[in-house]
Amino acid sequence: MEQVQGIVRIANRYKIPLFTISTGKNFAYGGPSPNLRGCVTLDLKRMNRILEVNEDRNFALVEPGVTYFDLYRYIQERDLKVWIDCPDPGWGSPVGNALDHGVGYTMQAFRDHFSAHCGMEVVLANGEVLRTGMGALPGAGSWQEYKHGFGPDPSGLFGQGNFGIVTKMGFRLMPQPEAYYIGKISVPKRLDLIPMVKALNYLSDSGLIGEPLFGTPMNALRGNADFRAVLAKPGGPTDTEFDRFAADNNLHAWEVELQFYGPERTNLANWEYAKDLFRQRVPGARAYEGKSFRIPVSREQLLVKNEMPYPSSAPYDPAFGVPNLKNWRYLGRAAGSPDGKLTGDAGFYPIIPRQGQEILKFQRIFGDAPPGHLSAHEYRRRNRADGRAHYTRVIFSNRLPDARIPLHLAFRQGTQRTRPSRIAGHGRGGGRARLGDYRSPPVYQDIVASAYSFGEHALRRFHETLKDAVDPNGILSPGRGGVWPALHRKHRRV
Amino acid sequence: MEQVQGIVRIANRYKIPLFTISTGKNFAYGGPSPNLRGCVTLDLKRMNRILEVNEDRNFALVEPGVTYFDLYRYIQERDLKVWIDCPDPGWGSPVGNALDHGVGYTMQAFRDHFSAHCGMEVVLANGEVLRTGMGALPGAGSWQEYKHGFGPDPSGLFGQGNFGIVTKMGFRLMPQPEAYYIGKISVPKRLDLIPMVKALNYLSDSGLIGEPLFGTPMNALRGNADFRAVLAKPGGPTDTEFDRFAADNNLHAWEVELQFYGPERTNLANWEYAKDLFRQRVPGARAYEGKSFRIPVSREQLLVKNEMPYPSSAPYDPAFGVPNLKNWRYLGRAAGSPDGKLTGDAGFYPIIPRQGQEILKFQRIFGDAPPGHLSAHEYRRRNRADGRAHYTRVIFSNRLPDARIPLHLAFRQGTQRTRPSRIAGHGRGGGRARLGDYRSPPVYQDIVASAYSFGEHALRRFHETLKDAVDPNGILSPGRGGVWPALHRKHRRV
Repeated sequence: MEQVQGIVRIANRYKIPLFTISTGKNFAYGGPSPNLRGCVTLDLKRMNRILEVNEDRNFALVEPGVTYFDLYRYIQERDLKVWIDCPDPGWGSPVGNALDHGVGYTMQAFRDHFSAHCGMEVVLANGEVLRTGMGALPGAGSWQEYKHGFGPDPSGLFGQGNFGIVTKMGFRLMPQPEAYYIGKISVPKRLDLIPMVKALNYLSDSGLIGEPLFGTPMNALRGNADFRAVLAKPGGPTDTEFDRFAADNNLHAWEVELQFYGPERTNLANWEYAKDLFRQRVPGARAYEGKSFRIPVSREQLLVKNEMPYPSSAPYDPAFGVPNLKNWRYLGRAAGSPDGKLTGDAGFYPIIPRQGQEILKFQRIFGDAPPGHLSAHEYRRRNRADGRAHYTRVIFSNRLPDARIPLHLAFRQGTQRTRPSRIAGHGRGGGRARLGDYRSPPVYQDIVASAYSFGEHALRRFHETLKDAVDPNGILSPGRGGVWPALHRKHRRV
Repeated sequence: MEQVQGIVRIANRYKIPLFTISTGKNFAYGGPSPNLRGCVTLDLKRMNRILEVNEDRNFALVEPGVTYFDLYRYIQERDLKVWIDCPDPGWGSPVGNALDHGVGYTMQAFRDHFSAHCGMEVVLANGEVLRTGMGALPGAGSWQEYKHGFGPDPSGLFGQGNFGIVTKMGFRLMPQPEAYYIGKISVPKRLDLIPMVKALNYLSDSGLIGEPLFGTPMNALRGNADFRAVLAKPGGPTDTEFDRFAADNNLHAWEVELQFYGPERTNLANWEYAKDLFRQRVPGARAYEGKSFRIPVSREQLLVKNEMPYPSSAPYDPAFGVPNLKNWRYLGRAAGSPDGKLTGDAGFYPIIPRQGQEILKFQRIFGDAPPGHLSAHEYRRRNRADGRAHYTRVIFSNRLPDARIPLHLAFRQGTQRTRPSRIAGHGRGGGRARLGDYRSPPVYQDIVASAYSFGEHALRRFHETLKDAVDPNGILSPGRGGVWPALHRKHRRV
């Protein structure tokens, strides 16, 4: 931390812009790349101390260079009864991931990694160090107890931003549950997505389930030429066409896997409740009995599964708080890479109102994109951390000479079709169905941020005023999150 | 909102400081009183529109003048299946309460009212209007879906602060549960508080229980002269003395009521689990079967109870999301007011690490205060929203001529004994057991804020730099949360 202060002071003296990374593994979001060419990368990966893991009060305090693997190993070695909530790949940093608003797989209180933080230590642009929450009270033992502290809480400025360099961060941890249950529900018709999402909102917001894993049995028809033809039509299949394909092939339109964490009896009671709820609300809904796992699961149980989880009814490592790297292989295959290796991954991750109608509308917009590229994920929609969103993504592999460019174009076309030259903030028919990314690689950050324009960019002006006040030399990650300091503002892309 | 913008512009022109209140009912925390004498009170109580309550997506969007009563009535009239999480008195504003980091009674995801917000509209000091979260995306239907939006999130600056005037705010609502169960656990010895709190942390952080309601059967001995004498000793009773009084009177040292929200079978499964947990971890723990309520409860069921809930095993209105004003009467009685009326209420609400040892340490500090004044609450400790803290409070009634002053003195002495002239940031033995308020009336805010001094007041300087940048004329609530603009900084008390 003292070294970081020293670096910041030197950068200030010579007005050298720094771009800070924790471990630089932020794949799909630009990895370690800065917003501004010529920045000095400040790599914190050697700040890798795990300062505390507390299983009485269920929190961890770590430095930015600590990875999910490190933290997991630390917990396992000490046999502590707490879980971490990790994203798909486990090589990244809990601090870095949370600061970029990353998400995971377990219960809602832990899945939104930024919201699950409980106090930070931050080196400011002027070289001072502040602590948020109870950390501002010297000598208090309550740093990780209460993140708001007293007075205003500036911590939100340090997420997806450039108002400081986070050198320590606390996280609430989920107590190790007694058991895990996973079961599956399917519904017959396309428009059944509407009551399905409503029921899931009920279960999710009531804290009865973990992340719901959406899918569609219709993926079985991916090889069906007739269905592909219908998918390729502008606007995709009509509801009637879709339902006919489903019925003719004895398939259901949608399915969702429900994950339950808690005492074994509680999980089963919640599963019974969920089945009743879907039966009442969606005619023809089917429930598929899943499996109960006593925690901890064995290494063998986890090895059963080598791919992404959904829809699967088999344990997926991050669902058990176990970091791994399996999903690169999965994504590589999904991208069509012959050796399963993946070299590129860029997403469009909009926040969609949690209603079936809105998801279907979103899907129609993206159905306009050239088929085959988006279709792998076309019927995969996830309820995000905070239970609040859905996404799609585009993956590509440069091992396939033809793959990278058309996929990238498809991605841009899919978004540009609805609003030229904007990757975020789509409007069809004058502002309806507007979508904005929750996270983005640096190359798109200005376009994304510029879509968040309410009050003629009042939020951007507010951030810029704050930024110029606390970082007058513009040394901290200029452009990050769309926030440019005065000195470098001319580099903003939009 | 346009009127608020107009007022702000005039205030800027003439450098008139404004002090904004939502409804001004912030009792125990200063009510409508400003930090700076001579402020013009900007009362938003006529901005009282309920803009949306959505039972598919479980949120509300309201203006600052809306009260908990208004919102409750709106929901009841439309028979919407959502609950609000309300504080003890229901006359206040959800916006005002959340901005002052207020708390409630139901499940953890909703009890911390600030954390449960999902997007704000804010009039800034320069008269501009910004929206946070997805509200910054014009025309998006996702405002209440995801509070972080894209890029840095400044919303924390508007809580307990003076960086803007919040004119609209969204809140996540708890879906109406099928049932409610309340049961009680007691443990025999004083030091059993340690495993008890640990077990409660497990249940709370696992999302299995609502707010745990602490109490002690030892309050039955309040009339016992011997016990009072021991309580009055410096440092209070030793553990051995305490346990002997408990055993001699066939009483347990501590009790806690557990509240469960969810499907009826889930609640019972969780209750069984909780009983097993306490039996395993605390020798001699007893469980008292409580009662299951089908939701909604009837008006008659609620009327059973006219006092504060704990420990009671009877329904308390806010535990059911029903706003009320009963607790003023209770507090009046507890203050010894003959007519039950209360005229004063000032609290010391420190954040304490969630460990039994820490709570006992805190209790010993406050046991030094003159007995009889604090004793009414001496053995009442609550696990706060966010599950993260405990508090005590002092209440007084000016109907009792002798009551106000000694109680106030006791309060100050209790805190001053550990660190002269500091109401927050107590240290015994050089910084151990340091405590800081999470919330405070304006009269104490500077002393409280000054205790959050890490890095030689780095947080305060950071706030002041930000404040001067966005409010150069210091017109918005100068001094609120300890943040003074340059123009009025000379008025800071510490």
